[in-house]
Amino acid sequence: MANSLFSKIVAREIPAHIVAENEHCLAFLDVFPLAEGHTLVVPKTEVDYLFDLDDDHYEELMVFSRKVAKAIHAAVPCRKVGLSVVGLEVPHAHVHLIPLQTIGDMNFAKEKQRANDSQLAEVALRIQHYL
Amino acid sequence: MANSLFSKIVAREIPAHIVAENEHCLAFLDVFPLAEGHTLVVPKTEVDYLFDLDDDHYEELMVFSRKVAKAIHAAVPCRKVGLSVVGLEVPHAHVHLIPLQTIGDMNFAKEKQRANDSQLAEVALRIQHYL
Repeated sequence: MANSLFSKIVAREIPAHIVAENEHCLAFLDVFPLAEGHTLVVPKTEVDYLFDLDDDHYEELMVFSRKVAKAIHAAVPCRKVGLSVVGLEVPHAHVHLIPLQTIGDMNFAKEKQRANDSQLAEVALRIQHYL
Repeated sequence: MANSLFSKIVAREIPAHIVAENEHCLAFLDVFPLAEGHTLVVPKTEVDYLFDLDDDHYEELMVFSRKVAKAIHAAVPCRKVGLSVVGLEVPHAHVHLIPLQTIGDMNFAKEKQRANDSQLAEVALRIQHYL
């Protein structure tokens, strides 16, 4: 049963701008992005705390995140793609991949606005192109 | 030759409060911590961008970071240990492990103060105890 918001996305019960998927992981755009191209990567298994994933799933999530990060970097103008796991909001482990221009771009306390769906769809297509 | 600040720490040319080490990675306390127990994990090889590490070193860094994060969580009161790679300051890839109480604790734009060395030494010992 899909409980968390992210499990509902994995189960396609609610829509998302998906950029990549494999057997155990799903990557989709954050609808409240800190920067254009801000992507979330989740394990399909619903685990609250990143470090509670078993070894194989943890490693797979990190390797998959890197693959997605490289595509984001190719698709979105930025200096680097930052990676962050905070884990104090949605109780389903998720890796943030955020295109960075300045250190202030990685600030989770910053006020965010919901992004426009047609813009998100366009960004998702651009990232998919590099995957 | 050790060029970056972190390579000089790896080479023991400058001191640090080291908490853990293996063949390819070193973990030590950040002297400008965002929270008590804030630790940096670096690959001993000097690579600027995390995602440019080769597959084996990238995976090893992530697995080693998790091991250290579990020890930090055991040693320092916190809700979770957050993980972040920003990469816009020191040009040597490094994983931040930060004990979190609130989402505002993961804010790299926050003003920081240099920590007291005797306090850092005490925190390093506490974390080492769980490794």
